[in-house]
Amino acid sequence: MQPILNSHLNELDEDIFHHFGFTTKSFDFKQKFGDVKFVCVCGSSNRIHNFAISMAKLSGIQLPVENIAGSHARFVLYKVDHILFADHGIGIPSTLILMHEMTKLLHYAGCKDVLFIRLGTCGGLGVKPGTLVMSDRCVNTKLEPYNELCILGKPVRRQTKVDLNAVNELKKLSENLSLQCSVVVGGTITANDFYEEQGRLDGAICSFSQEEKLAYLKSAYDHGIRNLEMEGTAITSHCNSTGHRAILVCVAVVNRLENDQVTISADDFKLFEQLPGKLVGEYLKRNSGLIAR
Amino acid sequence: MQPILNSHLNELDEDIFHHFGFTTKSFDFKQKFGDVKFVCVCGSSNRIHNFAISMAKLSGIQLPVENIAGSHARFVLYKVDHILFADHGIGIPSTLILMHEMTKLLHYAGCKDVLFIRLGTCGGLGVKPGTLVMSDRCVNTKLEPYNELCILGKPVRRQTKVDLNAVNELKKLSENLSLQCSVVVGGTITANDFYEEQGRLDGAICSFSQEEKLAYLKSAYDHGIRNLEMEGTAITSHCNSTGHRAILVCVAVVNRLENDQVTISADDFKLFEQLPGKLVGEYLKRNSGLIAR
Repeated sequence: MQPILNSHLNELDEDIFHHFGFTTKSFDFKQKFGDVKFVCVCGSSNRIHNFAISMAKLSGIQLPVENIAGSHARFVLYKVDHILFADHGIGIPSTLILMHEMTKLLHYAGCKDVLFIRLGTCGGLGVKPGTLVMSDRCVNTKLEPYNELCILGKPVRRQTKVDLNAVNELKKLSENLSLQCSVVVGGTITANDFYEEQGRLDGAICSFSQEEKLAYLKSAYDHGIRNLEMEGTAITSHCNSTGHRAILVCVAVVNRLENDQVTISADDFKLFEQLPGKLVGEYLKRNSGLIAR
Repeated sequence: MQPILNSHLNELDEDIFHHFGFTTKSFDFKQKFGDVKFVCVCGSSNRIHNFAISMAKLSGIQLPVENIAGSHARFVLYKVDHILFADHGIGIPSTLILMHEMTKLLHYAGCKDVLFIRLGTCGGLGVKPGTLVMSDRCVNTKLEPYNELCILGKPVRRQTKVDLNAVNELKKLSENLSLQCSVVVGGTITANDFYEEQGRLDGAICSFSQEEKLAYLKSAYDHGIRNLEMEGTAITSHCNSTGHRAILVCVAVVNRLENDQVTISADDFKLFEQLPGKLVGEYLKRNSGLIAR
């Protein structure tokens, strides 16, 4: 797919990355980022920092891994060999900001066809807590494969295709590793809320019954949906429009056909949230994400 | 307005606040939170922490102000006298999570008619950087006074009224203080993106011209809009539905009729982002937010 270019960027003498806390004059983007092949993202700054550290250890790089983002930034940014790491916060709007600034960074650095990998937590649908769900498609809460923006007051829909080649490679790889968890490939719903939009009964407001909730979730299951989260359509649609690729590897922390609340123990949560990184880390190592030392 | 009750909550023996990292069994909510009259929120955890500290100093409370949220929480939570403080991240989805868990907390604590105050940064419309904008209404990017959710696949619109009494009180108060900044009352657009949805030309993707952008922003200005941000309709609509009240006090860091990028210096940014707290802090002190010691 051809990237949509923004010709207005050519008119800027200096481009300020407001949420990264640096500008195009802070350093030489081609020199600093020109070798990037992968971008790993997740919701929380702590979790992505820990993943960057684990990749640095795998690569034999001296710690600590320094945060490239400025001190007043809203996101963190780390780099290990050919991989960038950042957090995107919660939800599509926060994630779109990260995606705009990250793909501008790659544009100035001359990087093309980069694979974005979201390592997330999610609600599973018909799968046990601790199951890895890799998305074969990303849909909104109406089960449509689009992200909709409202640009200058008018609706614009963008496709949300995932890179199925990478999904298949990761699926095969998972079968050769002893991950001690199930790996499922299925559809992903991206919602704009954790409670009502995901059909939870335990928010401050709830206008539907247990039966109506289950009818919605079971219908989604019958359409091949296996998890619900809050950022997938933002990442895939933005990559589809900028010439990059995207996949989502999320771990279920609850089975939404059985429960709304996340009742697993703190220890299990800690263990589960590291599972996407175990699979993705191995994939990156085998696919030239790291420099052989 | 009558609060919408969620009768499903009565069926829970223990309610897990997933993003605050505690449960209804962690402490006695009535005893710990029963005297809350105000909830102050902003996007960043650091900024709200600093504001909580400044209120604690005003009240003569011993520092530090302890974070009530659990160690694996996604939001922070502080309390000083009758005021709670929390961060909501960026955008409507992240903010809705905070609002669901915060209003459940107030529900269990028995607090009614609480005033939520968002202290934010924003893009100004026809106002200089450093101007305080207090919202007299909150609209989406189509200039409609609603927040739209998609619940079980179907669209639901909720009103976004602000508490005009509190806005008028704050406006009057601002005239009696030497704030060294302008205070403007006007409409607020809440967008689902920082770049394209706010008509910026400097994102990674841009499909419109400078002329089309200005036509949109000038039309909004003519409709009384004075700033653009990313959370207002989430906070107001959720308060409208749960029997609480909400106001927004945001400082402009750019005038969008003149610029897209935030070009003010880091020192000015630091100074400006404290302005909402200066006005709101004085308001809270005079309106029984703090206990006289």
